[in-house]
Amino acid sequence: MGKVYLIGAGPGAADLITLRGARLLAQAEVVFHDALVQPELLALAPQAQHIAVGKRCRKLSTDQRFINRALVEAAQRHTIVVRLKGGDPMLFGRAQEEIAALREAGIAYEIVPGVTSALAAAADLGISLTQRGVSRNVVFVTPRVGTGETASDWTKSVLAADTAVLYMASGQAAQIAASLMQSGLPGSTPAALISNASLPTMQKILTTLAQLPEVAHNAASPALIVLGEVLSAQALEDLPEFIKHEHFSASS
Amino acid sequence: MGKVYLIGAGPGAADLITLRGARLLAQAEVVFHDALVQPELLALAPQAQHIAVGKRCRKLSTDQRFINRALVEAAQRHTIVVRLKGGDPMLFGRAQEEIAALREAGIAYEIVPGVTSALAAAADLGISLTQRGVSRNVVFVTPRVGTGETASDWTKSVLAADTAVLYMASGQAAQIAASLMQSGLPGSTPAALISNASLPTMQKILTTLAQLPEVAHNAASPALIVLGEVLSAQALEDLPEFIKHEHFSASS
Repeated sequence: MGKVYLIGAGPGAADLITLRGARLLAQAEVVFHDALVQPELLALAPQAQHIAVGKRCRKLSTDQRFINRALVEAAQRHTIVVRLKGGDPMLFGRAQEEIAALREAGIAYEIVPGVTSALAAAADLGISLTQRGVSRNVVFVTPRVGTGETASDWTKSVLAADTAVLYMASGQAAQIAASLMQSGLPGSTPAALISNASLPTMQKILTTLAQLPEVAHNAASPALIVLGEVLSAQALEDLPEFIKHEHFSASS
Repeated sequence: MGKVYLIGAGPGAADLITLRGARLLAQAEVVFHDALVQPELLALAPQAQHIAVGKRCRKLSTDQRFINRALVEAAQRHTIVVRLKGGDPMLFGRAQEEIAALREAGIAYEIVPGVTSALAAAADLGISLTQRGVSRNVVFVTPRVGTGETASDWTKSVLAADTAVLYMASGQAAQIAASLMQSGLPGSTPAALISNASLPTMQKILTTLAQLPEVAHNAASPALIVLGEVLSAQALEDLPEFIKHEHFSASS
């Protein structure tokens, strides 16, 4: 019986995986990877069989039960099986369902954490998500727009936090902005939209919550939205290379 | 003129730094590191001068202005200067102040993200911080206990989130639990205390918010506190190796 390693691939760039993750990839016999994982990362496991399974934002993805079953079966045939997940496995990765399936089948497993996209986005922005005197907490959220009863829960967590990072947010910017403003977050709240964090195709736009839908219209996927006063810090004022949306005023 | 790299060292284990971070450490001429960074990580930069500067939890640490000045001066004498920070630089790392100093001095800089401790703790617990049907968001917080006016802000962000991770929480568990219960979080809320995440000395205890002070009394530092229903998931029920506090009931 083999062992299954749930490994965080990191935000995208192949050299933002951990040393441990890279070492295990080099030893793996089979790698089940998210569709979003870059080819350069899979090149760290040239000897392994590569199997693409879910999750591409809002596109058809492999059924979770199929993935669970495939992991168990692979561990019955191979010594080192890797489940490579975008970002970190324990954040928006449905790892618990895979862990439950492995435990039920008596398969050994280990989790190797990774760099989550929000932190790569913060690095790309040059903006710390927490700042002395400005922000002492940050919430990571998947917004759930237009689903009635639960719709208010996620906005509540955003409103209560000093900084918020919205994952899987591209394509929903209009509904997100509307929900948040309806819940009481001012339209003047500084906002940033970051696509493809850590990759050469990275794009970042600084704007406000109210103007977000307009800016997000043509944004590439996957994208994160950052909200909060950390974005209006003095540090931003003289960043000429930063694409500032015309309506944004750092002194708001 | 050299360049300063603000690099996330990751949660503790030396092989949980990124490939990029390790490569830059191997090229660095001087490394300014947090006191908490493990010796094994510094061994990745055997050729470099190592300078310990802040931050050890609640112990005397180097003045931030001194660190800022030292980074600028080092970049004037060396090509590759590394500022190695525990976890990720953009989360509870005071990176913005260092970035501001570097920009003011016209020094080039780059940020290399890292694995933040909360994610290593989740891996050690075997618990995903988000779970389908249980938690769609997680807040990372530094609690500020006993400081009057701002005391309620941090509890608000915890109460509004599905899952909360409290950083730099060891030694304050009694005040933290009291503040949260006073703000309305039930004493029966599942809680976990994790010390030295990712290291051989890692300890994890599962308990409830009300019982946290008792459990935390002898916990090693640094420690994180995790709060939320993700901890009471079925996945925990048959984890014999997990130290369950006697008062905890998974079916609460």
